[in-house]
Amino acid sequence: MTAATADPVRAAMFAALAASERVRGSTSPNPPVGCVVLDADGAVAGTGATQPPGGPHAEVLALRAAGDRARGGTAVVTLEPCAHTGRTAPCTTALLAAGVARVVHAVADPNPKAAGGAEVLRAAGVRVESGLLGEQIARGPLRAWLHFARTGRPHVTWKYAASLDGRSAAADGTSKWISSATSRAEVHELRGKVDAILAGTGTVLADDPQLTAREADGGLRPHQPLRVVVGDREVPAGARVFDDSAATIRLPGGDPAAALAELGRRGVVDVLLEGGPTLAGAFVAAGCVDRVLAYLAPALLGAGPAALGDAGVASVSQAWWWDIEETTMSGPDVRVSAVPTGR
Amino acid sequence: MTAATADPVRAAMFAALAASERVRGSTSPNPPVGCVVLDADGAVAGTGATQPPGGPHAEVLALRAAGDRARGGTAVVTLEPCAHTGRTAPCTTALLAAGVARVVHAVADPNPKAAGGAEVLRAAGVRVESGLLGEQIARGPLRAWLHFARTGRPHVTWKYAASLDGRSAAADGTSKWISSATSRAEVHELRGKVDAILAGTGTVLADDPQLTAREADGGLRPHQPLRVVVGDREVPAGARVFDDSAATIRLPGGDPAAALAELGRRGVVDVLLEGGPTLAGAFVAAGCVDRVLAYLAPALLGAGPAALGDAGVASVSQAWWWDIEETTMSGPDVRVSAVPTGR
Repeated sequence: MTAATADPVRAAMFAALAASERVRGSTSPNPPVGCVVLDADGAVAGTGATQPPGGPHAEVLALRAAGDRARGGTAVVTLEPCAHTGRTAPCTTALLAAGVARVVHAVADPNPKAAGGAEVLRAAGVRVESGLLGEQIARGPLRAWLHFARTGRPHVTWKYAASLDGRSAAADGTSKWISSATSRAEVHELRGKVDAILAGTGTVLADDPQLTAREADGGLRPHQPLRVVVGDREVPAGARVFDDSAATIRLPGGDPAAALAELGRRGVVDVLLEGGPTLAGAFVAAGCVDRVLAYLAPALLGAGPAALGDAGVASVSQAWWWDIEETTMSGPDVRVSAVPTGR
Repeated sequence: MTAATADPVRAAMFAALAASERVRGSTSPNPPVGCVVLDADGAVAGTGATQPPGGPHAEVLALRAAGDRARGGTAVVTLEPCAHTGRTAPCTTALLAAGVARVVHAVADPNPKAAGGAEVLRAAGVRVESGLLGEQIARGPLRAWLHFARTGRPHVTWKYAASLDGRSAAADGTSKWISSATSRAEVHELRGKVDAILAGTGTVLADDPQLTAREADGGLRPHQPLRVVVGDREVPAGARVFDDSAATIRLPGGDPAAALAELGRRGVVDVLLEGGPTLAGAFVAAGCVDRVLAYLAPALLGAGPAALGDAGVASVSQAWWWDIEETTMSGPDVRVSAVPTGR
């Protein structure tokens, strides 16, 4: 047993985090939450994660699995339990009915409709603690949902792959494969955890991408994001993005804010913007990119299209600035994650 | 005292490494070597580093500082002591005369003229060990010299600063400042440790750079690299690169291999290639870049000149591939160091 898991509550929060990661992409517009119920002796009695909209929340599933062992025990949950009745009954009611003595949650609920869970529980005599692994979970599985709860706009990750010198393809247009197999597998995993993938009509016409989330063996992942084609150019009905492997919609017009508003109305919380340079430039220029995820391959090309097109920057003083939140290796590639400066 | 320095010989090697770093850039065509002499009890008795050509080598200076305390002691040196007479007497002779009982060196000498130092010492009854911190020192202060010893060609580091999307300037040509103050200070420190800085006539005409190594307060560093202007375009005599802060030469023609051969003849071992995209492209295309050092600022520009120009790559299959040897943060920037794949 490592130091990180010597504390059963902390170990349970890691397990709840892992459980929430497994349902990421399937819960929107609800948050992907994980819950572990410990019995009075600190042993794991039940685990649960949010089911698709209309299905039970994480706490309810974990309590069901725990049964009588929940009485006098601790519920460890990634998000403050909700106190409101939506399509399901409040989780606070279920926790109180099960006789849980203590609730530890990672992140407080910023949603005024659902918040207040901690107070309801405390008023009923339950010990409530907040913040354990809070930052990690807020930046991880709950990131997009928290952003949506705070801003009313889906969270947008602009992902691109480029050579170290910033080219997304060579001079002749070839781009297979600039990024490594490791990075491509990681992107497919990411696709399988978002609600929607966006691409512009230009990219669809040029590359005919399928925009699906696939396993290493080529099979479709269980969760497929909504495919969204943005722009006004005509796209042939036979384009691969219109095949039956996942749902696809078209959003005419190129205004990022309008596109995101429409997606938000459809319950989309987490968006992956994949291409191409024109659409990415428009989103950056509109301040509609919440995270940049760059896969920089250790290659030099010296010619070919740039990863990012016109973003309204004429002079260095107008540059869009970011804070690097993480730089890691993805196989041989450098993977850079950045968020807008000041956020 | 940390675990790393609990062993006096290991601690001495770190001190020898630090001493060699301090003379880096001033010793070529000789290697920048550091030496620490420990007395018979393992206490530091003397430290030395290679002086400019014609001056004493590291071992001789450290032995002088140690005096009689060297007898029965250990010489800890970053490079195998030389056994040949150049402009100075062999270091092996000095070590034997001082009565040193043990020699620990980090890197074996690949130069057939100077090699054999370890055997000479062993034949005289000295204990000789090789390899301590060898990789770190071979990749660090001895890197360029080892490359020159093995290939006969100066070592070239192509350094560039760009936005995350690969632009070295904005659409209007402004580039002050894409990279951070931290990165710029690091580049000035690097300039102060190389033998020569290369720039193309295009960059000199466009940016009028001074190409000097400066301290944070703007003052000149003690060591100034040779400034080398490569190419045939006419450059005004009043260009800042021709001011009196350092020596400057012009190398007409744009052939990288010919330029490096000429620099090698002049005793240049370590070259920093700074610009611009045309010259960098020619060097990459000629296989004449031994290290890429990229400072990627967390900015997006979406337009403006690329950091690397034509490098003879039309298709992805012709890309130049590198191995990332290190990715670190330099202030807010991502600093990537890469070496050619397979080396």
